Amino acid sequence: MSDLLRSEPHVISAGLRLLADAAERQAARVTRVDWAPPLAGAADDLVPVLSDPRRTPANALAVQRMFGVRPHLIGVVPARTALDLQPGEFLHAGPPVGWERAAGPLRGALMGAAVFEGLADSPDAAAQLAERGAFALAPCHSRGAVGPMAGVISPSMWLFVLQDPATGRRSYCSLNEGLGKVLRYGAFSPEVLNRLTWMSEVLGPLLAAAVRRHGPVDVATILAQMVQMGDEAHNRNRTGTLMLLRDLLPSMIESGMASGDVARAAAFIGGNDHFFLNLAMPACKLALDAARDIPGSTLVVAMARNGTDFGIQVAGTGDQWFTGPALIPQGLFLGGYGPDDAGPDIGDSAITETAGLGGFAMAAAPAIAALVGGTAAEALATTRRMYEITLAEHPLYRVPALEFRGTPAGIDVTLVARTGILPQINTGMAGKVAGTGQVGAGLVTPPREVFLAALHALARATTSRSGTESG
Amino acid sequence: MSDLLRSEPHVISAGLRLLADAAERQAARVTRVDWAPPLAGAADDLVPVLSDPRRTPANALAVQRMFGVRPHLIGVVPARTALDLQPGEFLHAGPPVGWERAAGPLRGALMGAAVFEGLADSPDAAAQLAERGAFALAPCHSRGAVGPMAGVISPSMWLFVLQDPATGRRSYCSLNEGLGKVLRYGAFSPEVLNRLTWMSEVLGPLLAAAVRRHGPVDVATILAQMVQMGDEAHNRNRTGTLMLLRDLLPSMIESGMASGDVARAAAFIGGNDHFFLNLAMPACKLALDAARDIPGSTLVVAMARNGTDFGIQVAGTGDQWFTGPALIPQGLFLGGYGPDDAGPDIGDSAITETAGLGGFAMAAAPAIAALVGGTAAEALATTRRMYEITLAEHPLYRVPALEFRGTPAGIDVTLVARTGILPQINTGMAGKVAGTGQVGAGLVTPPREVFLAALHALARATTSRSGTESG
Repeated sequence: MSDLLRSEPHVISAGLRLLADAAERQAARVTRVDWAPPLAGAADDLVPVLSDPRRTPANALAVQRMFGVRPHLIGVVPARTALDLQPGEFLHAGPPVGWERAAGPLRGALMGAAVFEGLADSPDAAAQLAERGAFALAPCHSRGAVGPMAGVISPSMWLFVLQDPATGRRSYCSLNEGLGKVLRYGAFSPEVLNRLTWMSEVLGPLLAAAVRRHGPVDVATILAQMVQMGDEAHNRNRTGTLMLLRDLLPSMIESGMASGDVARAAAFIGGNDHFFLNLAMPACKLALDAARDIPGSTLVVAMARNGTDFGIQVAGTGDQWFTGPALIPQGLFLGGYGPDDAGPDIGDSAITETAGLGGFAMAAAPAIAALVGGTAAEALATTRRMYEITLAEHPLYRVPALEFRGTPAGIDVTLVARTGILPQINTGMAGKVAGTGQVGAGLVTPPREVFLAALHALARATTSRSGTESG
Repeated sequence: MSDLLRSEPHVISAGLRLLADAAERQAARVTRVDWAPPLAGAADDLVPVLSDPRRTPANALAVQRMFGVRPHLIGVVPARTALDLQPGEFLHAGPPVGWERAAGPLRGALMGAAVFEGLADSPDAAAQLAERGAFALAPCHSRGAVGPMAGVISPSMWLFVLQDPATGRRSYCSLNEGLGKVLRYGAFSPEVLNRLTWMSEVLGPLLAAAVRRHGPVDVATILAQMVQMGDEAHNRNRTGTLMLLRDLLPSMIESGMASGDVARAAAFIGGNDHFFLNLAMPACKLALDAARDIPGSTLVVAMARNGTDFGIQVAGTGDQWFTGPALIPQGLFLGGYGPDDAGPDIGDSAITETAGLGGFAMAAAPAIAALVGGTAAEALATTRRMYEITLAEHPLYRVPALEFRGTPAGIDVTLVARTGILPQINTGMAGKVAGTGQVGAGLVTPPREVFLAALHALARATTSRSGTESG
């Protein structure tokens, strides 16, 4: 103690700046440590979860399984065949929700899909049927699928089928329709439905023939290259789309289908920078599904929104959803739209962030930061911040601007709860009124409640287990 | 002076660190200024050139003309038609050179091209003809063309034709053959010649039909996007190639040519990440040609190598070449090749650096830095260093990692001479023995002599002009 008083003081200050500032004003040497208290309400549950001896090995196993998946596109098949989806059955993005609580974009997409399936003559008639409970709704995630924005999948829509060769596990996603007035943003005008018909009658069968002829397409390799080429695979899929086109085109041309159809399909895919999103998403889904159902693991295996609720699922808690109100994204708006037109966060596309892409790979795609009003420096800072709440660095997705460091991958519920840092999600914004379509693009986070709820369930699982062991 | 002695000293140190270090050891406040003396031998010529009143407006005009060009791909045509190239005439990369001083890769390419043209039965027979002076050689640059590596263009080869819509000015470049055993790296085996035949009989006519059907392709827009997507348009043209394929494919498919040929062409282009280099180069050539022949301008309008000499041309000195010995690139080698296998720097492709791409846009393509053994930080540093020797920032080529700052564009002979900083060039490496092909990729600079020679000519032009005025 006498030593301490004789030497120059060196203050180490954690968290609040008040003390550090005061000490510095008295000419003391101060080292500041970035620190924040845990999320309010997390402390009691953090203790049992962090002291659970299963946690570290369970998370290591979860990460290993996630990184072990090599998603390949193996086919393109109608949803009725791939998922045995029946007339009147519809899948949607996010956690479960009924028509009565469904947001505008989801209602719009369901109305359009019902007309597309021939179940109603008009969107209004479809809404009346939905009101009367004529349709069966289930999350895409419950059937091994994912869907961007409203994420509505109906039996006649064609799906990409992805498979992990080592395990045979599969995942599914619809074909991307492009931007603007499209079903997944809740639009249902005749142009939307005509495009869906062309996609079912021409594009789906043509892609199916091309994949058959070409053989499986290694989606992981394309994703790895995208991160080298300015894409983060959520809001920017430009090079991914071009590489897919390059890989499948010779087989499309030689498929025997009419050259006019092939040319239109090539122009449609080439003219839609987001086409590859619908392969990035099921690739991420496939990786994360491999990490499900590992007792004790605190890894987030799904983040998804239905436009009303934001939900997450965790490796250690089975298929249980932890939900809270979806937030409204902040960003830039298309044409004459503004903040009042945007609905709450929607879509399964946050599966990309869950797997280390999207907002987590923002440093690889500074153009996205510019698109939503930020800078390249902020893009770097966002990715760096996500390392604080993730368990690993992705072995394939390497960021040039970070000296090829792997992206932060594998969100840990306890790290989010301890640091208060919420996952950063890049997203499109749908108009809140059914039928509108896309109104912008921006940034959003999950509501903190979902992590508190997940942590509580993990804590209870630990306690009940201790109870069993001692009983 | 008494004031100076009473107050704390503040030393500003330019250049050498010796004084700054000593002052700092005596606890003086030191501000270091990065400074180096001019290139040895440049001082006498710098004075008249820097004091030439024409220089500033001439360089402003040169930059304005360079940035005003919008290169469009308007056609694909055989060299005999496009350039009126006659049997026995060959164009080559770099400044003028005869067979007797030609490097191995250039000799190999000429031998292969002569067999391809039916002028000789074998590469050896072609060499004997060349030895006897049977062929007429001229630089590509002398005919409005550019060629990568050996850059040999013979009458039967098809060329991209680029045009600036505002002025009607044109530039030309051969079609890219891919990597490895290819003519431009000096290889002439049967596989090389068979590929050239297929390119003349199938690929050229197909691309010509596609461009006719599609209409002009805006090459500048593709280049601008490439810089957002990890390409620097010299050693990396991956996304450029994909975007060209996307743009031309619907027209290729609907050209009426056999679907097998279209599929093979799509696979050939898609499988060759460098295909777009041969559009990037003439786009740069077209921009720089617009800046030629401006008296008093010190802007470099061409940097080119023939494997023996490195040559530059300058806006203020007409078509005069300033040459020095080409250096050997430093980098990484393919397969079993090593430093002893590499020949000196070769190719017209340094036209990309001359226009603000390639090594000057390295910050946009950190993967290239990794390819040649460097880091992303070094890539940023390289681009930043090039701002020291350039007149402007390119309005279209914007680097995400530099907060979308334009690339350094427009090399100024006086800035090179004053700072001693040499332009950084990314390049492929050809085997020095004729027939070898590519052996690696790396970094190189021009020899400093070429800038001293250019500066001297600029100085003489100033002096003779003063003489005229006073006489």
